[in-house]
Amino acid sequence: MKQKVIIVGGVAGGASAAARLRRVDEQAEIIMVERGPYISFANCGLPYYIGGTIEERSALLVQTPEDMNARFRVDVRVENEVLSIDREKKTVQIRDIKEDRVYEESYDKLVLSPGSTPLKPPIPGIDAPNIFSLWNIPDVDRIKGFVDGMKPKTAAVIGGGFIGLEMAENLHDLGMDVSVVEMADQVMAPVDFEMAQIVHKHMKTKNVNLLLGDGVKNFEYHNGKARVTLQSGNHIEVDMVILSIGVRPQSELAKNAGLEMNQRNGIVVNAHMKTSDENIYAIGDAIEVVDFISGDKTMVPLAGPANKQGRICADNIAGINSAYKGTQGTSVAKVFDLTVASTGVNEKTLKRNGKEYGKDYYTTIVHPNSHAGYYPGAIPMTLKLIFSTDGKVLGAQNVGYDGVEKRVDVIATAIRFGATVYDLTELELAYAPPYSSAKDPVNMAGYVGENILKGVTKPFQWHEIKDVGEDVVILDVREPIERDLGFITGSVNIPVDELRDRLSELDRNKKIVVYCAVGIRGHAASRILMQNGFEHVYNLMGGYATYATTLC
Amino acid sequence: MKQKVIIVGGVAGGASAAARLRRVDEQAEIIMVERGPYISFANCGLPYYIGGTIEERSALLVQTPEDMNARFRVDVRVENEVLSIDREKKTVQIRDIKEDRVYEESYDKLVLSPGSTPLKPPIPGIDAPNIFSLWNIPDVDRIKGFVDGMKPKTAAVIGGGFIGLEMAENLHDLGMDVSVVEMADQVMAPVDFEMAQIVHKHMKTKNVNLLLGDGVKNFEYHNGKARVTLQSGNHIEVDMVILSIGVRPQSELAKNAGLEMNQRNGIVVNAHMKTSDENIYAIGDAIEVVDFISGDKTMVPLAGPANKQGRICADNIAGINSAYKGTQGTSVAKVFDLTVASTGVNEKTLKRNGKEYGKDYYTTIVHPNSHAGYYPGAIPMTLKLIFSTDGKVLGAQNVGYDGVEKRVDVIATAIRFGATVYDLTELELAYAPPYSSAKDPVNMAGYVGENILKGVTKPFQWHEIKDVGEDVVILDVREPIERDLGFITGSVNIPVDELRDRLSELDRNKKIVVYCAVGIRGHAASRILMQNGFEHVYNLMGGYATYATTLC
Ligand SMILES: Cc1cc2nc3c(=O)[nH]c(=O)nc-3n(C[C@H](O)[C@H](O)[C@H](O)COP(=O)(O)OP(=O)(O)OC[C@H]3O[C@@H](n4cnc5c(N)ncnc54)[C@H](O)[C@@H]3O)c2cc1C
Ligand SMILES: Cc1cc2nc3c(=O)[nH]c(=O)nc-3n(C[C@H](O)[C@H](O)[C@H](O)COP(=O)(O)OP(=O)(O)OC[C@H]3O[C@@H](n4cnc5c(N)ncnc54)[C@H](O)[C@@H]3O)c2cc1C
Ligand SMILES: CC(C)(COP(=O)(O)OP(=O)(O)OC[C@H]1O[C@@H](n2cnc3c(N)ncnc32)[C@H](O)[C@@H]1OP(=O)(O)O)[C@@H](O)C(=O)NCCC(=O)NCCS
Ligand SMILES: CC(C)(COP(=O)(O)OP(=O)(O)OC[C@H]1O[C@@H](n2cnc3c(N)ncnc32)[C@H](O)[C@@H]1OP(=O)(O)O)[C@@H](O)C(=O)NCCC(=O)NCCS
Repeated sequence: MKQKVIIVGGVAGGASAAARLRRVDEQAEIIMVERGPYISFANCGLPYYIGGTIEERSALLVQTPEDMNARFRVDVRVENEVLSIDREKKTVQIRDIKEDRVYEESYDKLVLSPGSTPLKPPIPGIDAPNIFSLWNIPDVDRIKGFVDGMKPKTAAVIGGGFIGLEMAENLHDLGMDVSVVEMADQVMAPVDFEMAQIVHKHMKTKNVNLLLGDGVKNFEYHNGKARVTLQSGNHIEVDMVILSIGVRPQSELAKNAGLEMNQRNGIVVNAHMKTSDENIYAIGDAIEVVDFISGDKTMVPLAGPANKQGRICADNIAGINSAYKGTQGTSVAKVFDLTVASTGVNEKTLKRNGKEYGKDYYTTIVHPNSHAGYYPGAIPMTLKLIFSTDGKVLGAQNVGYDGVEKRVDVIATAIRFGATVYDLTELELAYAPPYSSAKDPVNMAGYVGENILKGVTKPFQWHEIKDVGEDVVILDVREPIERDLGFITGSVNIPVDELRDRLSELDRNKKIVVYCAVGIRGHAASRILMQNGFEHVYNLMGGYATYATTLC
Repeated sequence: MKQKVIIVGGVAGGASAAARLRRVDEQAEIIMVERGPYISFANCGLPYYIGGTIEERSALLVQTPEDMNARFRVDVRVENEVLSIDREKKTVQIRDIKEDRVYEESYDKLVLSPGSTPLKPPIPGIDAPNIFSLWNIPDVDRIKGFVDGMKPKTAAVIGGGFIGLEMAENLHDLGMDVSVVEMADQVMAPVDFEMAQIVHKHMKTKNVNLLLGDGVKNFEYHNGKARVTLQSGNHIEVDMVILSIGVRPQSELAKNAGLEMNQRNGIVVNAHMKTSDENIYAIGDAIEVVDFISGDKTMVPLAGPANKQGRICADNIAGINSAYKGTQGTSVAKVFDLTVASTGVNEKTLKRNGKEYGKDYYTTIVHPNSHAGYYPGAIPMTLKLIFSTDGKVLGAQNVGYDGVEKRVDVIATAIRFGATVYDLTELELAYAPPYSSAKDPVNMAGYVGENILKGVTKPFQWHEIKDVGEDVVILDVREPIERDLGFITGSVNIPVDELRDRLSELDRNKKIVVYCAVGIRGHAASRILMQNGFEHVYNLMGGYATYATTLC
């Protein structure tokens, strides 16, 4: 039976669904309805076109309606908006925007991939002509037009998520002085504070004016300038503003049709991408997904999941059984010269959910080189691993310059199979000097985790340092010369290689927190102490490197 | 009870074992006996020191005996060779090479990490003064001394394994004319022929004189030149020769002590790295390991496994239960600008073991971009996936310029968990335009595999083309202009986007092999044909890109 399928939204999820559906169902009638003037565009490339890294606008248009039709016989209707769904009649009302005409179209199956839309809270002055959001091609044209025409010299990006930071970088590349305003105490919400601090420091070296822990109170527009007044009372004056404080699902259509929704206006679907209506599927940013790790319900607006869900949805419509098993939230962003990548759950979220360090989960931080230290160009990364006290890997975060997202991809893959830290130690990853070390950073993170779980190491976290009292010795096992660049206040210094001969200098009744530059010598030293009768010995995870990063 | 542990061999396996053992057993007496003058050196970095990429010789010496002793209290005895083992008495005979003195040392536990040594077959003339092998620091000093002193202009590398190719690159970097002689019809044995062809072509663009399918008959030395006569009768005359035709385990010690050995002189160990003698452990190149995928016994001389086995062995000696679960043979090499990486089994090996394509296993070849095509610098890789007919991933090979070993690491990780191609489609990998595509190359390889397994696609392999007869239509679905750069002889051309309207031009009774540039349009076209009543439709895996690469 030839089925008629209407797809609402023609970009990441919708276009993927259409292409796959055609490949598995040559007979179906496929209509793609897209409100905007373009389909299949590279959302994720938009910031780079503004900054000039992507030179040609046409590069953003991955597929045109004409090509989509020629290749896949999809009846693409751009500048058409689906207004409502009549689930009883199985029809949708569509408004042809250009012709300003409303018409009805029937369907056998309906696919909703309406995506999300940037949040635009009712902040006074938010509608000023030099305040922009970035979500689609018309947005990019507006911003590009403004940048080329008005030659702004200063910009404020409101919101330190990945899109905000990509915009900060690209505006900076255009020679602008850029401020980033972020309400939280850190940018890049998917990573934890000590990881974000690396990003903060990096952005400062790029002369980005980073305003953390502060929100926008209002905007005032005069003489072509936006005056941004912050909650703190501080204000900045800039030539343009990019608003990038988050997104919300464009799910009104689904909601109005009475489909089951979650509290965040996410469309509820089952593993086959089917909504509460037998004949309606939904995919992409607008749906609720299962958190692969916790099993909880969540929403993850990312292109990888959207594209994959598109294909799964098409399969199910064509009668091929296919299931979506949840989203881990694996993501990566380039922030100037840094790469910031993560997968799974972060420590913040665990804490917010009432989980306790040491009882429910542990973390490790290692700073291994991107590749063998003796081969030129090796540069350390900061890799944080989060795992449950029974060993299951829950998440990973990595910040650095090279080979960063590779390690996150490996851990993301391991997580997919329910890996433990023990599994990470066993992974056999490709090693030659230009690419890695014989023990890859992922193995290394695994080893440290294993040591914690087996009691070989007792970990100490960077933020515990500030609470240590008189009963604790902080032992710096680095070489004296390394202390010239900084040390933890109150720490005593015995280099690891002298430790065995100087044990008597340490008070056996005290708790000892050992640290070195990154944790390796600290580990060796703590093992010496532990096996020489010291009972309460801890190793500072990530060493002085991580500790120092957290100080502003 | 304080135990006395002697470790034979102080580099990858041995040094790792010593360091870990000290960390988990502060009381043990640890003696490391190393025949050469150095321990803990960077074997894998040696070629790059010769070529000058690694500038300082000292960078190759990761740990000195002094440092090893200071940090880990290991009694390091370089230039000492263990001559024999008395298993009854639990002693070893050691020769102090410098002092030319033989002495005995007792042990509670003995660890053998003697590594392997380059093969040096009895080819006439092989002992000429300008013929070198590369395995350790003295070797590198000899080669470096020769290169600096004699300023050779031409070199022949005998053997196209990864060390041979690394040497070819490094000698080329020094400005030499380099020939590579390889007995097989391809270099880089871990990958299959069509993958190696990419390497061959690349090396030719670097003006390397590649002599495949030819072995050395003899060497003749005169006037500082080596004349290399090949089996074919051809000969080359060069200033220096690097012999790099493989390695054999240095396991005489173990063999003479009556330990259980395999047919290739590999030391047999159990999962705890224990030999047939309760008190003797063995690790590294010299041991037999379990092939993680097939479960067969094999030998894999690589640093990653050696270092990991060293740690596992130390744990077991210290009473911490730890097991080695086998080796996949994940590896990577930089060959000039290319990266060549692989994991698991290759097709050649499957065939050699009597496995049949289509019955026992399938392969896919995809050519996805290293990252999003619209972001500058995207460059295609060639990713081959090998999987059983029930879906289990058996191996992967990847050749390209960027992000190559990342995908192999991901698949290597998946293999560790017994992944199927279906699992690969579901992996959630980090995506932003500079790093990947919304559907990562690994997902893509999985999709193609899934299509084969589910009968959505019938695959055709590049080497089957030469056998097609009159009953087969080879259908090129690319644009006419693409044919200008080459096409398969006898193919007819109907661009995919015209196919639906031109079905009548094709003979429904014939088998149709569709191809495009890489396989994507071929896939779309084959789906159109299959669903329009054509019964025998195949898609050429890897498309014209792979096919053309295999033509010399
Ligand atoms: C600047 C930017 C950078 C990004 N970078 C990344 C990145 O690096 N990595 C990553 O994973 N993700 C990134 N994303 C997110 C990613 O683009 C989205 O997650 C993905 O596009 C979601 O797919 P979707 O199909 O749900 O929605 P979209 O791709 O947004 O498509 C939804 C479409 O539906 C249309 N539509 C909505 N309602 C209707 C209606 N009623 N009638 C007709 N049409 C309608 C909209 O006009 C829109 O074009 C980025 C997004 C942006 C904006
Ligand atoms: C040029 C080169 C490049 C390489 N590149 C890579 C790469 O990129 N990736 C990779 O994974 N692997 C690479 N390898 C292989 C890797 O170095 C080995 O797999 C690894 O070193 C094996 O570790 P092992 O401990 O078994 O042996 P080794 O590291 O070789 O150490 C064995 C030591 O034992 C000593 N010894 C032997 N017998 C005795 C005895 N009777 N008494 C005392 N001492 C003894 C030897 O002198 C030797 O120093 C490379 C090797 C070379 C030579
Ligand atoms: C130099 C050598 C002796 C070092 O061995 P090692 O001490 O085991 O290795 P590393 O210095 O990388 O340290 C790893 C240890 O530090 C720990 N560690 C690493 N980062 C850490 C951190 N940030 N915090 C705490 N501990 C950390 C690991 O857990 C591991 O300890 P464990 O084994 O007790 O779990 C050995 O690798 C060697 O000889 N290498 C050169 C030879 C060679 O490998 N050649 C072939 C490749 S070229
Ligand atoms: C352009 C677009 C419509 C393409 O969708 P698509 O056709 O499914 O994707 P691709 O062109 O990558 O092709 C993938 C198909 O080719 C197949 N394929 C890929 N390489 C192949 C090869 N070498 N041989 C055979 N088949 C191959 C895959 O199996 C897959 O087919 P399947 O789904 O039937 O299994 C869609 O990706 C899109 O709209 N993208 C832009 C919007 C977007 O994603 N934005 C967010 C990110 S910026």
